[in-house]
Amino acid sequence: MSAVLAEAPAAKLSFTAKPEVALVLLGTGVVGGAFLKLLCTPVSGRLRLVGAANSRKQQTDAAQLAARDLRDRLKREGAARDDAALLSALDAHGAALKVIVDATASTELSSRHSEWLARGYHVVTANKSLAGGQLSGWRALQAARAAGGRYGDAATVGAGLPVLSTLRRLCDCGDSLLTLEGVFSGSLSYLFNQYDGSRPFSALLREARKLGYTEPDPRADLSGEDVARKLLILARNAGFALGSDEVAVESLVPESLRAISAEAFLDRLEELDEPLAALHEAARARGQVLRFLARLNQRGRARVGLTEVPVTHPAARLYGTDNQFALTTTRYHTQPLVIQGPGAGPEVTAQALLGDVLALE
Amino acid sequence: MSAVLAEAPAAKLSFTAKPEVALVLLGTGVVGGAFLKLLCTPVSGRLRLVGAANSRKQQTDAAQLAARDLRDRLKREGAARDDAALLSALDAHGAALKVIVDATASTELSSRHSEWLARGYHVVTANKSLAGGQLSGWRALQAARAAGGRYGDAATVGAGLPVLSTLRRLCDCGDSLLTLEGVFSGSLSYLFNQYDGSRPFSALLREARKLGYTEPDPRADLSGEDVARKLLILARNAGFALGSDEVAVESLVPESLRAISAEAFLDRLEELDEPLAALHEAARARGQVLRFLARLNQRGRARVGLTEVPVTHPAARLYGTDNQFALTTTRYHTQPLVIQGPGAGPEVTAQALLGDVLALE
Ligand SMILES: NC(=O)c1ccc[n+]([C@@H]2O[C@H](COP(=O)([O-])OP(=O)(O)OC[C@H]3O[C@@H](n4cnc5c(N)ncnc54)[C@H](OP(=O)(O)O)[C@@H]3O)[C@@H](O)[C@H]2O)c1
Ligand SMILES: NC(=O)c1ccc[n+]([C@@H]2O[C@H](COP(=O)([O-])OP(=O)(O)OC[C@H]3O[C@@H](n4cnc5c(N)ncnc54)[C@H](OP(=O)(O)O)[C@@H]3O)[C@@H](O)[C@H]2O)c1
Repeated sequence: MSAVLAEAPAAKLSFTAKPEVALVLLGTGVVGGAFLKLLCTPVSGRLRLVGAANSRKQQTDAAQLAARDLRDRLKREGAARDDAALLSALDAHGAALKVIVDATASTELSSRHSEWLARGYHVVTANKSLAGGQLSGWRALQAARAAGGRYGDAATVGAGLPVLSTLRRLCDCGDSLLTLEGVFSGSLSYLFNQYDGSRPFSALLREARKLGYTEPDPRADLSGEDVARKLLILARNAGFALGSDEVAVESLVPESLRAISAEAFLDRLEELDEPLAALHEAARARGQVLRFLARLNQRGRARVGLTEVPVTHPAARLYGTDNQFALTTTRYHTQPLVIQGPGAGPEVTAQALLGDVLALE
Repeated sequence: MSAVLAEAPAAKLSFTAKPEVALVLLGTGVVGGAFLKLLCTPVSGRLRLVGAANSRKQQTDAAQLAARDLRDRLKREGAARDDAALLSALDAHGAALKVIVDATASTELSSRHSEWLARGYHVVTANKSLAGGQLSGWRALQAARAAGGRYGDAATVGAGLPVLSTLRRLCDCGDSLLTLEGVFSGSLSYLFNQYDGSRPFSALLREARKLGYTEPDPRADLSGEDVARKLLILARNAGFALGSDEVAVESLVPESLRAISAEAFLDRLEELDEPLAALHEAARARGQVLRFLARLNQRGRARVGLTEVPVTHPAARLYGTDNQFALTTTRYHTQPLVIQGPGAGPEVTAQALLGDVLALE
């Protein structure tokens, strides 16, 4: 074994001296906060946080950035938000790799991702709104990537379940996505894994909200829009240049409850009960169950909505808030390649961001 | 969008000019043959095959290597096997990346992987016998990797299902494997997914063999040794430095059938029937089913063998020859991260080799 090491040419050894990485973190909410915690672990030794921001304040001072309560402090103190100052902090650090980590849901910020890539910054994001937004934004992103910009997006789909990386690897090898199907939302997975007609859907929904499984306004989940964005991201990465209006989305929120305030909506959840109970009963009579599925077929038709599936269907056998992604490709055609597991949560999402940062080295 | 491109600094563009890759292929059997086919597809444009070998002959002549029937020709003509001549062909080509693809099961060849890495060749392998063999071999491999050698091993477990890459990515982020469980053999998956006591096990086994799901001598599958090697590879990649004798393997082959010839074994398959029928019946009486599972627990105890599982167990719900890998980690702890799908087959295995080659660039 020592013979092996002794034979290693000196040039190869330098190959392992990883470059230092300077980071700016945008967003110190649930995911950003968990990411800050990961930065304090030993694996993050070569990473230097040189800036952090929430929607109103930012910080580039080393001592302040090192404070354990950085997140709370940013709520009270710091400079006013100014992207240019954050980019300057990245430049000033002199690290070989400059990375912007976007842990917000801001479309304003994501609209700058491509520009940042073109200027030599790498972008790692949990923010779906660029790749899952307008087609023009996606095309600009692809152009910036083709010119060498590296875009870490593992956190945007399945909270870091290895779906996007697998899909891209298959496509790089000349494989083609034929169909894609699955459950892409932790909250909708939970709701329909639990819902068996014995309790009203609204009661379950209130419980899920209390457990933190849904957004504060659950319509963000029930509308299917978040699922549609993930389906768009996957489809586009597989080569289907779909417009954001080309996913047929069947919302679970009735028309009458869409335009009202969050508070009013929470007061009227019971209006969801009867229609869902009827659908559930009809499915049950046919020996089927309801699942909120995303599907892409071979002709690039994308659809998101509540679907009846037989109890033998893989999606019928999910637990908790698990996501599921079933990829059928030219080479995985008799049985799909399936990736399944927790598809939300601050810790795994932050880990997905960290994994993408470390993969840049 | 064009503004984005125009802004890209020239230096970044050169980043995308991928280096040329020179390849030597060892083994032109089922997997090697499929790999040769993939080399003829457009995605392999930058790859140059500069040598190919079976167990007896080899070829380094460009015109010969380009022949569609290279595999068959190697059976009849070519130079005598000589690794040094293949390495010289790699050196002579002058490509930026020199890669040795091992599509054999030869322990003699795998014992040289670490030395090749130390000499600046990259190794991409479907051959499990180094990483799944003696601990000393694994340690030498780790040393060569730490010194910068790159070892593509996706094909060694799950035929390219993204298990090893996912496990390593999690560990790189400071996550730890707590338990690992699954079905790691396509043939054993098929046999126990099918076996319901209605037909003798031996009849099913003969059928599986005819379908090409088992090795010509099915004891190679039934012994559990191949599953044990995969479990070792996974455990070691997760940081458990297990010796090759530290996996408890319960073979399905009774003592009396182990030392006889393959022919004699095939004549006596019926001797497997009664014991398996009894186990099946006992499981059924408890509402359970039989699965051939690999398991690693938190204390690094590794075990491979036939196990009774409830019908709600994920492994009870497999189809065809699917493999399944369930990873429970510090951060994936409420529900495991599960990767499932075809875990054998020439095309997906060859694609895993190609993916590892392309990832070197
Ligand atoms: N939570 C999950 O499990 C999960 C999983 C996968 C992906 N994601 C995605 O991750 C992103 C963040 O999710 P989250 O749950 O952490 O949301 P969150 O708790 O609402 O946090 C969002 C953060 O972004 C900040 N922000 C908004 N606009 C900003 C701007 N222009 N500049 C700087 N910061 C800005 C907010 O600042 P204030 O504090 O000032 O409001 C807040 O700190 C979202 O895109 C989400 O879809 C989340
Ligand atoms: N088949 C699958 O689905 C699958 C999936 C995952 C991993 N794998 C692994 O992939 C490897 C190859 O499997 P396979 O199914 O292709 O086996 P195979 O059909 O038996 O082919 C093995 C090849 O290796 C050649 N070989 C043996 N010793 C050699 C040496 N010293 N130098 C050069 N070539 C040598 C053989 O040469 P001859 O032609 O002269 O005998 C033959 O061409 C095995 O390690 C297997 O475990 C296979």
